[in-house]
Amino acid sequence: MSDTEPLSPTERTRIHRARPRARRDRAQLYALLDAGLVCHLGFLADGFPRVLPTGYGRIDNTLYLHGSVGARSLRDSPGTEVCATVTHLDGIVYARSLMHHSTNYRCAVIHGIARHVGDPEEKTRALWAISEQLAPGSWDRARHPDERELATTAVLALPLREASVKVRDGGANDDEADIAQGDAWAGVLPLRTSWGRPVPASDLPADIHAPAAITARPEPG
Amino acid sequence: MSDTEPLSPTERTRIHRARPRARRDRAQLYALLDAGLVCHLGFLADGFPRVLPTGYGRIDNTLYLHGSVGARSLRDSPGTEVCATVTHLDGIVYARSLMHHSTNYRCAVIHGIARHVGDPEEKTRALWAISEQLAPGSWDRARHPDERELATTAVLALPLREASVKVRDGGANDDEADIAQGDAWAGVLPLRTSWGRPVPASDLPADIHAPAAITARPEPG
Repeated sequence: MSDTEPLSPTERTRIHRARPRARRDRAQLYALLDAGLVCHLGFLADGFPRVLPTGYGRIDNTLYLHGSVGARSLRDSPGTEVCATVTHLDGIVYARSLMHHSTNYRCAVIHGIARHVGDPEEKTRALWAISEQLAPGSWDRARHPDERELATTAVLALPLREASVKVRDGGANDDEADIAQGDAWAGVLPLRTSWGRPVPASDLPADIHAPAAITARPEPG
Repeated sequence: MSDTEPLSPTERTRIHRARPRARRDRAQLYALLDAGLVCHLGFLADGFPRVLPTGYGRIDNTLYLHGSVGARSLRDSPGTEVCATVTHLDGIVYARSLMHHSTNYRCAVIHGIARHVGDPEEKTRALWAISEQLAPGSWDRARHPDERELATTAVLALPLREASVKVRDGGANDDEADIAQGDAWAGVLPLRTSWGRPVPASDLPADIHAPAAITARPEPG
Protein backbone atom coordinates (compact mmCIF):
# COMPACT_ATOMS: atom_id res chain seq x y z
CA MET A 1 0.00 0.00 0.00
CA SER A 2 1.74 3.16 -1.15
CA ASP A 3 1.18 6.60 0.28
CA THR A 4 -0.48 7.77 -2.88
CA GLU A 5 -2.86 4.86 -3.21
CA PRO A 6 -6.42 6.15 -3.11
CA LEU A 7 -8.72 5.11 -0.30
CA SER A 8 -10.63 2.25 -1.89
CA PRO A 9 -14.10 2.23 -0.44
CA THR A 10 -15.57 -1.01 0.78
CA GLU A 11 -19.25 -1.39 1.55
CA ARG A 12 -18.51 -0.15 5.07
CA THR A 13 -16.62 2.96 4.07
CA ARG A 14 -18.57 3.93 0.98
CA ILE A 15 -20.27 7.20 1.73
CA HIS A 16 -23.94 6.88 0.88
CA ARG A 17 -25.18 10.23 2.08
CA ALA A 18 -23.88 13.58 0.87
CA ARG A 19 -21.45 11.94 -1.54
CA PRO A 20 -19.91 15.21 -2.71
CA ARG A 21 -18.43 15.43 0.77
CA ALA A 22 -16.48 12.22 0.35
CA ARG A 23 -12.74 12.55 -0.13
CA ARG A 24 -10.72 9.88 -1.83
CA ASP A 25 -7.07 10.56 -1.39
CA ARG A 26 -4.87 9.14 1.27
CA ALA A 27 -3.04 12.44 1.80
CA GLN A 28 -6.25 13.98 3.09
CA LEU A 29 -6.76 11.12 5.51
CA TYR A 30 -3.24 11.56 6.83
CA ALA A 31 -3.56 15.34 7.13
CA LEU A 32 -6.81 14.99 9.03
CA LEU A 33 -5.36 12.41 11.41
CA ASP A 34 -2.10 14.30 11.92
CA ALA A 35 -4.03 17.44 12.88
CA GLY A 36 -6.03 15.65 15.61
CA LEU A 37 -5.43 15.00 19.28
CA VAL A 38 -7.78 12.18 20.23
CA CYS A 39 -9.81 9.65 18.32
CA HIS A 40 -13.03 8.00 19.41
CA LEU A 41 -12.47 4.27 19.37
CA GLY A 42 -15.46 2.00 18.99
CA PHE A 43 -15.21 -1.67 19.89
CA LEU A 44 -17.33 -4.49 21.17
CA ALA A 45 -17.28 -5.05 24.93
CA ASP A 46 -19.28 -8.11 25.94
CA GLY A 47 -21.10 -7.85 22.64
CA PHE A 48 -22.10 -4.21 23.06
CA PRO A 49 -20.62 -1.24 21.24
CA ARG A 50 -18.49 1.01 23.41
CA VAL A 51 -16.89 4.30 22.41
CA LEU A 52 -13.97 5.81 24.30
CA PRO A 53 -11.65 8.70 23.52
CA THR A 54 -8.01 7.77 23.21
CA GLY A 55 -4.70 9.19 22.10
CA TYR A 56 -3.12 7.99 18.90
CA GLY A 57 -0.22 8.45 16.58
CA ARG A 58 0.43 7.57 12.96
CA ILE A 59 3.44 5.98 11.33
CA ASP A 60 3.00 5.58 7.59
CA ASN A 61 -0.04 3.40 7.04
CA THR A 62 -0.55 2.37 10.64
CA LEU A 63 -2.52 4.12 13.36
CA TYR A 64 -1.25 3.35 16.85
CA LEU A 65 -3.69 3.65 19.73
CA HIS A 66 -2.85 4.15 23.30
CA GLY A 67 -3.41 2.11 26.28
CA SER A 68 -6.13 2.57 28.75
CA VAL A 69 -8.77 1.59 26.26
CA GLY A 70 -6.80 -1.45 25.33
CA ALA A 71 -6.10 -2.31 28.90
CA ARG A 72 -9.62 -3.07 29.81
CA SER A 73 -11.61 -4.36 26.97
CA LEU A 74 -9.34 -4.99 24.06
CA ARG A 75 -6.45 -6.73 25.74
CA ASP A 76 -8.52 -9.86 26.10
CA SER A 77 -9.77 -9.82 22.57
CA PRO A 78 -6.95 -9.37 20.08
CA GLY A 79 -7.99 -9.50 16.47
CA THR A 80 -11.30 -7.76 17.08
CA GLU A 81 -12.89 -5.34 14.69
CA VAL A 82 -12.72 -1.75 15.83
CA CYS A 83 -13.64 1.63 14.38
CA ALA A 84 -11.54 4.72 15.06
CA THR A 85 -13.07 8.08 14.25
CA VAL A 86 -11.34 11.46 14.29
CA THR A 87 -13.54 14.52 13.96
CA HIS A 88 -12.66 18.18 13.60
CA LEU A 89 -15.67 20.44 14.09
CA ASP A 90 -14.97 23.63 12.14
CA GLY A 91 -18.14 25.64 12.51
CA ILE A 92 -21.90 25.85 12.75
CA VAL A 93 -23.83 26.52 9.57
CA TYR A 94 -26.88 28.71 10.13
CA ALA A 95 -29.50 28.51 7.40
CA ARG A 96 -32.86 30.14 6.65
CA SER A 97 -34.55 26.84 7.44
CA LEU A 98 -33.86 24.64 10.44
CA MET A 99 -33.45 21.54 8.33
CA HIS A 100 -30.57 23.12 6.40
CA HIS A 101 -28.71 24.02 9.54
CA SER A 102 -25.54 21.99 9.56
CA THR A 103 -21.97 21.82 10.73
CA ASN A 104 -18.70 22.25 8.91
CA TYR A 105 -16.40 19.41 9.81
CA ARG A 106 -13.65 17.05 8.72
CA CYS A 107 -14.10 13.45 9.77
CA ALA A 108 -12.14 10.26 9.20
CA VAL A 109 -13.64 6.86 9.97
CA ILE A 110 -11.30 3.90 10.01
CA HIS A 111 -12.41 0.30 10.17
CA GLY A 112 -10.10 -2.58 10.80
CA ILE A 113 -8.83 -5.34 12.98
CA ALA A 114 -6.76 -4.02 15.86
CA ARG A 115 -3.55 -5.86 16.56
CA HIS A 116 -1.76 -5.79 19.88
CA VAL A 117 1.77 -4.53 19.58
CA GLY A 118 4.00 -6.93 21.43
CA ASP A 119 7.41 -6.40 19.85
CA PRO A 120 9.29 -3.99 22.14
CA GLU A 121 10.91 -2.16 19.24
CA GLU A 122 7.61 -1.52 17.46
CA LYS A 123 6.01 -0.63 20.78
CA THR A 124 8.65 1.99 21.44
CA ARG A 125 8.20 3.44 17.95
CA ALA A 126 4.43 3.46 18.49
CA LEU A 127 4.77 5.25 21.83
CA TRP A 128 7.04 7.77 20.18
CA ALA A 129 4.36 8.46 17.56
CA ILE A 130 1.59 8.72 20.15
CA SER A 131 3.75 11.00 22.29
CA GLU A 132 4.66 13.26 19.36
CA GLN A 133 1.00 13.58 18.41
CA LEU A 134 -0.11 14.66 21.89
CA ALA A 135 3.00 16.43 23.16
CA PRO A 136 5.46 17.15 20.36
CA GLY A 137 9.01 17.40 21.62
CA SER A 138 8.43 15.61 24.92
CA TRP A 139 10.12 12.46 23.63
CA ASP A 140 13.40 14.40 23.55
CA ARG A 141 13.07 15.81 27.07
CA ALA A 142 11.00 13.60 29.38
CA ARG A 143 12.13 10.31 30.92
CA HIS A 144 11.51 7.37 28.60
CA PRO A 145 9.40 4.42 29.70
CA ASP A 146 11.29 1.79 31.65
CA GLU A 147 10.76 -1.93 31.19
CA ARG A 148 7.99 -2.16 33.75
CA GLU A 149 6.13 0.80 32.26
CA LEU A 150 6.49 -0.62 28.78
CA ALA A 151 5.13 -3.97 29.93
CA THR A 152 2.05 -2.45 31.54
CA THR A 153 1.18 -0.23 28.58
CA ALA A 154 -1.07 -1.60 25.91
CA VAL A 155 -0.63 -0.37 22.36
CA LEU A 156 -2.89 -1.29 19.49
CA ALA A 157 -2.08 -1.07 15.80
CA LEU A 158 -4.80 -0.39 13.25
CA PRO A 159 -3.97 -0.55 9.53
CA LEU A 160 -5.09 2.52 7.57
CA ARG A 161 -6.57 0.37 4.86
CA GLU A 162 -10.32 0.74 5.09
CA ALA A 163 -11.13 4.35 5.74
CA SER A 164 -13.48 7.08 4.67
CA VAL A 165 -12.96 10.81 4.84
CA LYS A 166 -15.86 13.22 4.81
CA VAL A 167 -15.54 16.98 4.71
CA ARG A 168 -18.23 19.62 4.82
CA ASP A 169 -17.28 23.23 4.34
CA GLY A 170 -18.84 26.37 2.90
CA GLY A 171 -22.11 28.05 3.66
CA ALA A 172 -25.75 27.13 3.95
CA ASN A 173 -27.50 25.19 1.19
CA ASP A 174 -30.89 26.82 1.52
CA ASP A 175 -33.89 26.22 -0.69
CA GLU A 176 -34.59 28.97 -3.24
CA ALA A 177 -37.92 29.82 -1.67
CA ASP A 178 -36.31 30.27 1.74
CA ILE A 179 -33.58 32.50 0.30
CA ALA A 180 -36.24 34.65 -1.38
CA GLN A 181 -38.52 34.90 1.64
CA GLY A 182 -36.42 34.17 4.72
CA ASP A 183 -35.35 36.88 7.08
CA ALA A 184 -33.20 34.67 9.32
CA TRP A 185 -29.46 35.25 9.30
CA ALA A 186 -27.55 32.69 7.23
CA GLY A 187 -23.86 31.98 7.30
CA VAL A 188 -21.18 30.22 9.26
CA LEU A 189 -20.04 30.67 12.84
CA PRO A 190 -16.48 29.30 12.80
CA LEU A 191 -15.26 27.19 15.70
CA ARG A 192 -11.59 27.47 16.63
CA THR A 193 -9.40 25.53 18.99
CA SER A 194 -6.32 27.17 20.42
CA TRP A 195 -3.75 26.65 23.14
CA GLY A 196 -3.92 28.69 26.31
CA ARG A 197 -0.92 29.88 28.34
CA PRO A 198 1.09 26.98 29.76
CA VAL A 199 0.50 26.47 33.49
CA PRO A 200 3.68 25.18 35.17
CA ALA A 201 3.47 22.49 37.86
CA SER A 202 3.52 23.98 41.37
CA ASP A 203 6.66 21.99 42.18
CA LEU A 204 8.52 22.94 39.02
CA PRO A 205 11.92 24.58 39.74
CA ALA A 206 11.87 28.23 38.71
CA ASP A 207 14.76 27.76 36.30
CA ILE A 208 12.94 25.21 34.14
CA HIS A 209 11.13 27.09 31.42
CA ALA A 210 8.64 25.72 28.94
CA PRO A 211 10.35 25.09 25.58
CA ALA A 212 9.13 26.63 22.34
CA ALA A 213 7.48 23.31 21.44
CA ILE A 214 5.03 24.19 24.22
CA THR A 215 4.95 28.00 24.31
CA ALA A 216 4.79 28.28 20.53
CA ARG A 217 2.97 25.07 19.79
CA PRO A 218 1.07 25.42 16.49
CA GLU A 219 -2.67 25.72 17.04
CA PRO A 220 -4.46 22.36 16.80
CA GLY A 221 -6.94 21.34 14.16
CA MET B 1 -35.74 8.61 37.59
CA SER B 2 -35.37 11.97 39.25
CA ASP B 3 -32.85 14.61 38.25
CA THR B 4 -30.97 14.14 41.48
CA GLU B 5 -30.74 10.37 41.26
CA PRO B 6 -27.07 9.36 41.20
CA LEU B 7 -25.68 7.57 38.17
CA SER B 8 -25.88 3.96 39.25
CA PRO B 9 -23.00 2.11 37.66
CA THR B 10 -23.62 -1.16 35.90
CA GLU B 11 -20.81 -3.49 34.92
CA ARG B 12 -20.53 -1.55 31.67
CA THR B 13 -20.33 1.88 33.17
CA ARG B 14 -18.29 1.10 36.26
CA ILE B 15 -14.97 2.82 35.92
CA HIS B 16 -12.21 0.32 36.55
CA ARG B 17 -9.23 2.45 35.76
CA ALA B 18 -8.39 5.76 37.45
CA ARG B 19 -11.41 5.49 39.75
CA PRO B 20 -10.85 8.85 41.43
CA ARG B 21 -11.75 10.38 38.09
CA ALA B 22 -15.24 8.89 38.14
CA ARG B 23 -18.10 11.27 38.85
CA ARG B 24 -21.36 10.06 40.24
CA ASP B 25 -23.91 12.77 40.05
CA ARG B 26 -26.41 13.29 37.33
CA ALA B 27 -25.97 17.07 37.36
CA GLN B 28 -22.40 16.63 36.16
CA LEU B 29 -23.55 14.38 33.33
CA TYR B 30 -26.11 16.96 32.26
CA ALA B 31 -23.64 19.85 32.47
CA LEU B 32 -21.11 17.94 30.39
CA LEU B 33 -23.69 17.05 27.74
CA ASP B 34 -25.22 20.52 27.65
CA ALA B 35 -21.77 22.05 27.05
CA GLY B 36 -21.07 19.85 24.03
CA LEU B 37 -21.76 20.19 20.32
CA VAL B 38 -21.44 16.70 18.89
CA CYS B 39 -21.34 13.21 20.33
CA HIS B 40 -19.64 10.18 18.87
CA LEU B 41 -22.26 7.51 18.41
CA GLY B 42 -21.17 3.88 18.34
CA PHE B 43 -23.45 1.23 16.95
CA LEU B 44 -23.30 -2.09 15.19
CA ALA B 45 -23.50 -1.99 11.40
CA ASP B 46 -23.60 -5.47 9.89
CA GLY B 47 -22.11 -6.78 13.10
CA PHE B 48 -19.17 -4.37 13.15
CA PRO B 49 -18.74 -1.39 15.43
CA ARG B 50 -19.07 1.96 13.68
CA VAL B 51 -18.51 5.38 15.22
CA LEU B 52 -19.93 8.54 13.67
CA PRO B 53 -20.16 12.10 14.97
CA THR B 54 -23.68 13.43 15.30
CA GLY B 55 -25.61 16.33 16.74
CA TYR B 56 -27.73 15.84 19.80
CA GLY B 57 -29.92 17.58 22.31
CA ARG B 58 -31.13 16.74 25.79
CA ILE B 59 -34.56 16.99 27.33
CA ASP B 60 -34.62 15.89 30.96
CA ASN B 61 -33.43 12.28 31.06
CA THR B 62 -33.44 11.68 27.32
CA LEU B 63 -30.71 12.32 24.78
CA TYR B 64 -32.02 12.93 21.28
CA LEU B 65 -29.75 12.16 18.37
CA HIS B 66 -29.97 13.54 14.93
CA GLY B 67 -30.59 12.06 11.69
CA SER B 68 -28.04 11.16 9.14
CA VAL B 69 -26.58 8.46 11.32
CA GLY B 70 -30.00 7.04 11.89
CA ALA B 71 -30.85 7.24 8.25
CA ARG B 72 -28.35 4.71 7.13
CA SER B 73 -27.61 2.14 9.70
CA LEU B 74 -29.92 2.59 12.62
CA ARG B 75 -33.20 3.08 10.83
CA ASP B 76 -33.30 -0.58 10.00
CA SER B 77 -32.43 -1.73 13.47
CA PRO B 78 -34.63 -0.12 16.09
CA GLY B 79 -34.05 -1.35 19.58
CA THR B 80 -30.31 -1.80 19.07
CA GLU B 81 -27.70 -1.11 21.69
CA VAL B 82 -25.71 2.02 21.08
CA CYS B 83 -23.07 4.01 22.91
CA ALA B 84 -22.97 7.80 22.79
CA THR B 85 -19.79 9.50 23.98
CA VAL B 86 -19.24 13.22 24.50
CA THR B 87 -15.67 14.34 25.14
CA HIS B 88 -14.30 17.75 26.07
CA LEU B 89 -10.53 17.88 25.75
CA ASP B 90 -9.34 20.57 28.15
CA GLY B 91 -5.56 20.40 27.93
CA ILE B 92 -2.38 18.42 27.54
CA VAL B 93 -0.56 17.38 30.71
CA TYR B 94 3.22 17.45 30.32
CA ALA B 95 5.11 15.39 32.88
CA ARG B 96 8.76 14.63 33.71
CA SER B 97 8.24 11.12 32.38
CA LEU B 98 6.54 10.18 29.13
CA MET B 99 4.31 7.63 30.81
CA HIS B 100 2.78 10.30 33.05
CA HIS B 101 1.96 12.54 30.16
CA SER B 102 -1.80 12.75 30.01
CA THR B 103 -4.75 14.86 28.98
CA ASN B 104 -7.24 16.84 31.00
CA TYR B 105 -10.72 16.03 29.80
CA ARG B 106 -14.35 15.57 30.68
CA CYS B 107 -16.03 12.57 29.13
CA ALA B 108 -19.51 11.08 29.33
CA VAL B 109 -20.22 7.59 28.03
CA ILE B 110 -23.86 6.57 27.69
CA HIS B 111 -25.03 3.06 26.96
CA GLY B 112 -28.56 2.17 26.05
CA ILE B 113 -31.08 1.02 23.55
CA ALA B 114 -31.87 3.68 20.99
CA ARG B 115 -35.52 4.15 20.18
CA HIS B 116 -36.78 5.72 16.98
CA VAL B 117 -38.94 8.74 17.64
CA GLY B 118 -42.08 8.36 15.57
CA ASP B 119 -44.60 10.54 17.35
CA PRO B 120 -44.63 13.90 15.51
CA GLU B 121 -45.01 15.90 18.71
CA GLU B 122 -42.04 14.25 20.41
CA LYS B 123 -40.07 14.49 17.18
CA THR B 124 -40.67 18.22 17.00
CA ARG B 125 -39.61 18.65 20.63
CA ALA B 126 -36.50 16.55 19.94
CA LEU B 127 -35.59 18.63 16.89
CA TRP B 128 -36.05 21.76 18.98
CA ALA B 129 -33.60 20.38 21.55
CA ILE B 130 -31.07 19.35 18.89
CA SER B 131 -31.42 22.72 17.19
CA GLU B 132 -30.98 24.67 20.45
CA GLN B 133 -27.86 22.65 21.25
CA LEU B 134 -26.17 23.37 17.93
CA ALA B 135 -27.62 26.78 17.05
CA PRO B 136 -29.34 28.38 20.04
CA GLY B 137 -32.03 30.83 18.98
CA SER B 138 -32.43 29.50 15.46
CA TRP B 139 -35.69 27.79 16.35
CA ASP B 140 -37.26 31.24 16.85
CA ARG B 141 -36.00 32.66 13.56
CA ALA B 142 -35.50 30.02 10.87
CA ARG B 143 -38.24 28.24 8.95
CA HIS B 144 -39.54 25.19 10.82
CA PRO B 145 -39.50 21.74 9.20
CA ASP B 146 -42.48 21.01 7.01
CA GLU B 147 -44.23 17.65 6.93
CA ARG B 148 -42.00 16.22 4.24
CA GLU B 149 -38.84 17.31 6.02
CA LEU B 150 -40.11 15.90 9.29
CA ALA B 151 -40.88 12.58 7.63
CA THR B 152 -37.43 12.24 6.10
CA THR B 153 -35.57 13.10 9.30
CA ALA B 154 -34.66 10.31 11.65
CA VAL B 155 -34.45 11.07 15.35
CA LEU B 156 -33.27 8.60 17.96
CA ALA B 157 -33.97 8.75 21.67
CA LEU B 158 -31.48 7.36 24.15
CA PRO B 159 -32.39 7.19 27.86
CA LEU B 160 -29.81 8.73 30.17
CA ARG B 161 -29.98 5.77 32.48
CA GLU B 162 -26.70 3.92 32.14
CA ALA B 163 -23.91 6.44 31.97
CA SER B 164 -20.46 7.11 33.30
CA VAL B 165 -18.71 10.42 33.69
CA LYS B 166 -14.96 10.67 33.91
CA VAL B 167 -13.04 13.86 34.55
CA ARG B 168 -9.32 14.45 34.69
CA ASP B 169 -8.02 17.83 35.71
CA GLY B 170 -5.01 19.25 37.50
CA GLY B 171 -1.33 18.79 36.84
CA ALA B 172 1.10 15.97 36.25
CA ASN B 173 1.26 13.01 38.63
CA ASP B 174 4.97 12.42 38.38
CA ASP B 175 6.97 9.87 40.36
CA GLU B 176 9.01 11.32 43.24
CA ALA B 177 12.29 10.29 41.64
CA ASP B 178 11.40 12.06 38.42
CA ILE B 179 10.41 15.21 40.27
CA ALA B 180 13.74 15.19 42.10
CA GLN B 181 15.87 14.46 39.05
CA GLY B 182 13.90 15.54 36.02
CA ASP B 183 14.68 18.66 34.09
CA ALA B 184 11.78 18.44 31.67
CA TRP B 185 9.07 21.08 31.93
CA ALA B 186 5.94 19.85 33.70
CA GLY B 187 2.54 21.43 33.70
CA VAL B 188 -0.58 21.85 31.64
CA LEU B 189 -1.08 23.37 28.22
CA PRO B 190 -4.77 24.33 28.22
CA LEU B 191 -6.87 23.77 25.12
CA ARG B 192 -9.64 26.24 24.40
CA THR B 193 -12.45 26.28 21.88
CA SER B 194 -13.93 29.58 20.83
CA TRP B 195 -16.19 31.04 18.18
CA GLY B 196 -14.74 33.03 15.33
CA ARG B 197 -16.40 35.99 13.63
CA PRO B 198 -19.66 35.04 11.92
CA VAL B 199 -19.30 34.82 8.12
CA PRO B 200 -22.55 35.87 6.42
CA ALA B 201 -23.82 33.96 3.38
CA SER B 202 -22.84 35.68 0.12
CA ASP B 203 -26.50 36.02 -0.82
CA LEU B 204 -27.62 37.43 2.52
CA PRO B 205 -29.39 40.80 2.19
CA ALA B 206 -27.27 43.56 3.72
CA ASP B 207 -30.02 44.53 6.17
CA ILE B 208 -30.11 41.12 7.87
CA HIS B 209 -27.66 41.20 10.75
CA ALA B 210 -26.54 38.30 12.90
CA PRO B 211 -28.46 38.32 16.19
CA ALA B 212 -26.72 38.40 19.57
CA ALA B 213 -27.34 34.65 19.91
CA ILE B 214 -24.71 34.32 17.18
CA THR B 215 -22.44 37.36 17.61
CA ALA B 216 -22.31 36.95 21.39
CA ARG B 217 -22.72 33.19 21.58
CA PRO B 218 -21.14 31.93 24.81
CA GLU B 219 -17.90 30.07 24.15
CA PRO B 220 -18.41 26.32 23.83
CA GLY B 221 -17.12 23.67 26.19
